[in-house]
Amino acid sequence: MSEEKNEITLKNYQVKIQDGLLQHLAEFIKPLWQPKKIAVITDDNVGPLYVDKVEAQLIEMGHRVVILTVPAGETSKSWEQVQVLIDSLAQNNFVRSDGIVALGGGVVGDLAGFVASIYMRGISLIQIPTSLLAQVDSSVGGKTAIDLNAGKNMVGSFYQPNLVLIDPSTIQTLPKRMLVEGYGEIVKCAALVGGSFWEIVQKVHQPADIILQAESLIHASIAFKASVVMRDEKENGLRKLLNFGHTLGHALELIEDGQLMHGEAVAVGMAYITAAFEKKGMTAAGTTAEITARLAQVGLPLVANQLGSAAFYRAMLHDKKIKGDQIILVYIKKIGEPAFYPLKITELKKWFEPILNSQIEDN
Amino acid sequence: MSEEKNEITLKNYQVKIQDGLLQHLAEFIKPLWQPKKIAVITDDNVGPLYVDKVEAQLIEMGHRVVILTVPAGETSKSWEQVQVLIDSLAQNNFVRSDGIVALGGGVVGDLAGFVASIYMRGISLIQIPTSLLAQVDSSVGGKTAIDLNAGKNMVGSFYQPNLVLIDPSTIQTLPKRMLVEGYGEIVKCAALVGGSFWEIVQKVHQPADIILQAESLIHASIAFKASVVMRDEKENGLRKLLNFGHTLGHALELIEDGQLMHGEAVAVGMAYITAAFEKKGMTAAGTTAEITARLAQVGLPLVANQLGSAAFYRAMLHDKKIKGDQIILVYIKKIGEPAFYPLKITELKKWFEPILNSQIEDN
Repeated sequence: MSEEKNEITLKNYQVKIQDGLLQHLAEFIKPLWQPKKIAVITDDNVGPLYVDKVEAQLIEMGHRVVILTVPAGETSKSWEQVQVLIDSLAQNNFVRSDGIVALGGGVVGDLAGFVASIYMRGISLIQIPTSLLAQVDSSVGGKTAIDLNAGKNMVGSFYQPNLVLIDPSTIQTLPKRMLVEGYGEIVKCAALVGGSFWEIVQKVHQPADIILQAESLIHASIAFKASVVMRDEKENGLRKLLNFGHTLGHALELIEDGQLMHGEAVAVGMAYITAAFEKKGMTAAGTTAEITARLAQVGLPLVANQLGSAAFYRAMLHDKKIKGDQIILVYIKKIGEPAFYPLKITELKKWFEPILNSQIEDN
Repeated sequence: MSEEKNEITLKNYQVKIQDGLLQHLAEFIKPLWQPKKIAVITDDNVGPLYVDKVEAQLIEMGHRVVILTVPAGETSKSWEQVQVLIDSLAQNNFVRSDGIVALGGGVVGDLAGFVASIYMRGISLIQIPTSLLAQVDSSVGGKTAIDLNAGKNMVGSFYQPNLVLIDPSTIQTLPKRMLVEGYGEIVKCAALVGGSFWEIVQKVHQPADIILQAESLIHASIAFKASVVMRDEKENGLRKLLNFGHTLGHALELIEDGQLMHGEAVAVGMAYITAAFEKKGMTAAGTTAEITARLAQVGLPLVANQLGSAAFYRAMLHDKKIKGDQIILVYIKKIGEPAFYPLKITELKKWFEPILNSQIEDN
């Protein structure tokens, strides 16, 4: 991995991070793609903001462009939308050397990435994530997915894009809740990395500070993710570290039925997994307070209604990191020192119950 | 790739070829899989023959087994069956460390392989191909697929199994047409390789000879495929050689609407692509006759009704090997000397019309 201020190189592709980059796409796309057919997949929130601008630039480069718009929201990560998109590609005679541009948040990135990975066994893909969460989380690492009734991201693939283009200025138009949600994922990365990254996070005292620090925060998060993913593309070991806060978080997301956004659920998950390990003496005293302070200052939630319910424990059993009769928990010994702890599934309840009965302090 | 008589090792997995291997699966599966949940995916033709035996052995090894049976035939390579199978895995709480066994012909292998590749972004897979075509063709190389109305194998993935187990004795129960169809693919491999492989093929004068020579024929085909796939997993170059006979063959298969089986369509495709290049003087005189002799002796077709129709040319435009305005044709200069020829799509008709108007000789 090479790394300069605005550019991170992964095995086969680059991530470009630059304010205003959406205004001059040719600079990045032209060296990569000869004129071809391109499907721009977007949603009905993001499309109206950016798709005309993107389309005009692609046509200027000599591409033939098809715009495919899905309804905004998690429900579009479905078999139904996959089939609609695939049929559109086939009807337009897309071949393997044509391309897809995913323009939108995490839902569009996950869905369009999955479609790109399976149409003709894989066609070229450029990710242009426009939400903070997608920029720091789902656009790097090659995970694509759709949801089943049984759980989020139950179907998907590992598929690397050809290029990821991030324009931090797009987060200025995000609703505050989505901005803050993305920041939850950033705090997760910072807690795993520690050092100077944790120092930048400490400069964020309110949502507006996220926008002020956007470029540094996005860059630090992606550089960390890239270093981990490069060493473990298929999630056999190290990459599981990125699931800090996700074991509890995914379960909550599932059963709270859309009430909690992903970054919010991860925030609650980080708070409680850290509290549980701190109570056991495996995490340095005060670490939970350090983390919850960062989350609370921007208004991220620290509790959820369903924490500790029977449904909550049941939902954890769908975790993709379950191996045999064990669930692999990610915790931190202190800020910047992550570790794994394999827990017997049968002991899940005993492990978490004590901490769920006490209130995490919000200092 | 290492290669002994009954074992071919690819990058991450082995192919075992052994008469009667279905009777002692533990020898091969036990070293690979700890006790876990296993879904055996099969169809209603193959299931009744082998599934009880396979299930009993898996249970004996300590696995929990779920049998999932799809209707036999190409129509099962559909979105519908993918969703049915995926829902069954989710309902049975399959996690990423559980496994799938594909027990059947090419349809089961393609479908179960695709399901394995996308369920939780990929779970373990053992292929047990029971048709000759699947044994020599679709079980090695990691191609998985389902069909769309727009074309065969339009959706799929590259996904390597953990192990491929081939019991040549299963082909004794195949209907003659399916046996001969698989042999069509073997002739394709032999024509690309030449040498001693082409000599074995010359010993086959009638369908019964295919069964007599089965182990050598299967071994030679897979060894060749493995050597090609190892050097080009994602089909960027060399692997396209395996499409000899397939550009015309796939188009025929599509428009003949189930009248031609895959190996039959490839036989016709090989005959005509070779005739076309021989007529142009790019293939040694007599090569077409050499190939058609091998095909005709076992009763493989050399012509098809729709050859040269408008639909035939249209169907070729869905070929996955189209790049820009060119289609990449695979031909042989002589037996054992394959080559590529990029042809402008606009010249397809001019190129093939002369040869379609004359009859290929069947000597």
